[in-house]
Amino acid sequence: MAVNLSEPTELRPVPGIRLGTAATGLKEAGRDDVAVVVFDPGASVAGVFTQSHFQAAPVIIAKRHAQGVRAWVINSGNANAATGAPGEDDARAVCAHLAERAGLELESIQPFSTGVIGERLNVAAIQHGVDRAFEGLNPASWLASARAIMTTDTVAKGASQVIQVDGHLVTISGFAKGSGMIKPNMATMLSFIGCDAQIEQSLLQRLVQRICDASFNRITVDGDTSTNDAFMVAATGQAAHRPILSEDDPGYQPLYDGLLQVAQTLAHAIVRDGEGATKFVAVRVKGGATAGECLSVAYTLAESPLVKTALFAGDANWGRLCMAIGRSDVAQLDPAGVSLWLDQVQVAAGGLMAPDYTDGAGSAVLAQDEYTITVDLGRGDSEETVWTTDLSYDYIKINAEYRT
Amino acid sequence: MAVNLSEPTELRPVPGIRLGTAATGLKEAGRDDVAVVVFDPGASVAGVFTQSHFQAAPVIIAKRHAQGVRAWVINSGNANAATGAPGEDDARAVCAHLAERAGLELESIQPFSTGVIGERLNVAAIQHGVDRAFEGLNPASWLASARAIMTTDTVAKGASQVIQVDGHLVTISGFAKGSGMIKPNMATMLSFIGCDAQIEQSLLQRLVQRICDASFNRITVDGDTSTNDAFMVAATGQAAHRPILSEDDPGYQPLYDGLLQVAQTLAHAIVRDGEGATKFVAVRVKGGATAGECLSVAYTLAESPLVKTALFAGDANWGRLCMAIGRSDVAQLDPAGVSLWLDQVQVAAGGLMAPDYTDGAGSAVLAQDEYTITVDLGRGDSEETVWTTDLSYDYIKINAEYRT
Repeated sequence: MAVNLSEPTELRPVPGIRLGTAATGLKEAGRDDVAVVVFDPGASVAGVFTQSHFQAAPVIIAKRHAQGVRAWVINSGNANAATGAPGEDDARAVCAHLAERAGLELESIQPFSTGVIGERLNVAAIQHGVDRAFEGLNPASWLASARAIMTTDTVAKGASQVIQVDGHLVTISGFAKGSGMIKPNMATMLSFIGCDAQIEQSLLQRLVQRICDASFNRITVDGDTSTNDAFMVAATGQAAHRPILSEDDPGYQPLYDGLLQVAQTLAHAIVRDGEGATKFVAVRVKGGATAGECLSVAYTLAESPLVKTALFAGDANWGRLCMAIGRSDVAQLDPAGVSLWLDQVQVAAGGLMAPDYTDGAGSAVLAQDEYTITVDLGRGDSEETVWTTDLSYDYIKINAEYRT
Repeated sequence: MAVNLSEPTELRPVPGIRLGTAATGLKEAGRDDVAVVVFDPGASVAGVFTQSHFQAAPVIIAKRHAQGVRAWVINSGNANAATGAPGEDDARAVCAHLAERAGLELESIQPFSTGVIGERLNVAAIQHGVDRAFEGLNPASWLASARAIMTTDTVAKGASQVIQVDGHLVTISGFAKGSGMIKPNMATMLSFIGCDAQIEQSLLQRLVQRICDASFNRITVDGDTSTNDAFMVAATGQAAHRPILSEDDPGYQPLYDGLLQVAQTLAHAIVRDGEGATKFVAVRVKGGATAGECLSVAYTLAESPLVKTALFAGDANWGRLCMAIGRSDVAQLDPAGVSLWLDQVQVAAGGLMAPDYTDGAGSAVLAQDEYTITVDLGRGDSEETVWTTDLSYDYIKINAEYRT
């Protein structure tokens, strides 16, 4: 059902990173649901986390264990969210188990969880899975890890890229999961990228925030923000290029570009695999006075149930687009300045139907799997794009039957 | 499909108000789609309108024709929205036609429209309908008017109430339409109430705003705000009580109470008949530091697609409730202070599952047609309630097939 999305055929190993997976029964029997990712000493690790007030226990612990990170331990099937102090103890117990097994400090291990909210973790089962994942650690298990963290995802999500930094090759590989509850107020669900670049940690942290703002912070499926969102990047420093120490370093931009491409591929994969998605739609808002108002209009369009059902139906009901633009949080928006396109077809000009527009031309665009809705607010130079899906029967089916 | 809602058996005539309806073919052939409501001289008329930037032409004209109102002319089937200056000319032409027919000033007539956005009005057809509606004017056509303004509504919505104001009877009758695109940033869709109270116009305007804030401004079906919303109240002044001149007048409170009861009945009817609704749910948020944060939490819960699909499924997935509370726009919300009830069943205390809670108890509440979700934020004395529905397959069906 995912829109033009298939499992990656190859995810390249990244020097300095080994991965292992195991099945503990948290998901259906036999499917991997635990992944362990271990870094050689010297890696820089940075990340951004959910903005939810209800931060899950693993998020709280992962934020605390942010220095000298040596491993990630990830489980699917149970989010360990809304579980309070006992949930934090559970997350720490999982980390402690891996720490002991791997001869690492407890504080060097970051936990991540995704799945049902409000239930205690089966710590013993996960610890047992951690043992087996640890025994199986190897440089090649990227795709297996992508599969292990899936919940309602229908396709495992990963991407690889090899870039050049001052003449030396750097490998970037990443995997992600997410399908519903996708409104990255910050990051979205779980996404992990590893590379062998050499980059100083605080610089990597700023870089990751920039990457996030241009990828995971620009997608929405249903406007719902998870309690567990995390986007993590590890740079092992094993590539041969000179260390990247500042934004002015010539290696910074190629690394930014490479990481962004992998992050956007993963973010778009989450939308393409959005719950019940039949369309992959870019909503581009230009001509805004500020980036904030462009985002407000873009998200209002991207999250309006009436717009999303029209996208599902392939119905060029541009009145609903006007409705959504009209209720967006923009001060003193003048409809007479607003123009609208579906791909290259101009639908509205100056708040009215464009003279040459026909329903047939609009419907032809909306019949495609992928297209762009462009809005020109006609009041400035800012521009933002968000990516989203339609709202289909299957969204309801998936979410009404999730626990039953 | 509406939740515990049937057509009113009787809407009482209001002295000083006559109504007429006609079918012009804007909706399916044979169904009334125009209503005309005429007031005797001396009525006070007040209203509140959509906050959308894309205000429909009739809203623009109705706001301009707000003094000395003598008639409303309402059509369904076409919203006359996103139609620019030509749309305003169309709305005025409809008013002018009624003005000439009735011997009234153009500026004393307020137009209202609901239906498809972005298409020009068939003015000639509506004018013809206005003729026939005018010929049929009578004091009894309240229910016929309620039926004439329906679009995706499955049940005509009306309510009547007789109250006492300083010992004299006052009759209040009203009708409304609305089913989807319901997020009354202000009013919701179209709602018209008439009464024979004597009340000065500017006082009535303030009263209507208060009533609206406690009724139409507290409901949401899908979070979408129409371009055409209007809530109007006419007071003909033909009742025998002493005129109500200020909030301190002893007649003010009974009139407020009576109007509120009719307005809430109509607002709740819109939710009960929400597109695809199978549940009628009150979301009550107490313990907030401000009314604003209570409303933020209440609307985030009421509009979350994941919460709404869980309500549809009758799935007591309280983790989704925490998720929605967690992403609401409240500064520094501490989950440890948050408690949660489904009717009288306590689900969470201090951000965790309540000790005695069972899934069975929660599911029993959610199996009902109607129930209340109560959240205590544990940080103040403010309290707000909003009313909403679930999100079902039929919402998608209705909106994906609206124009086809």
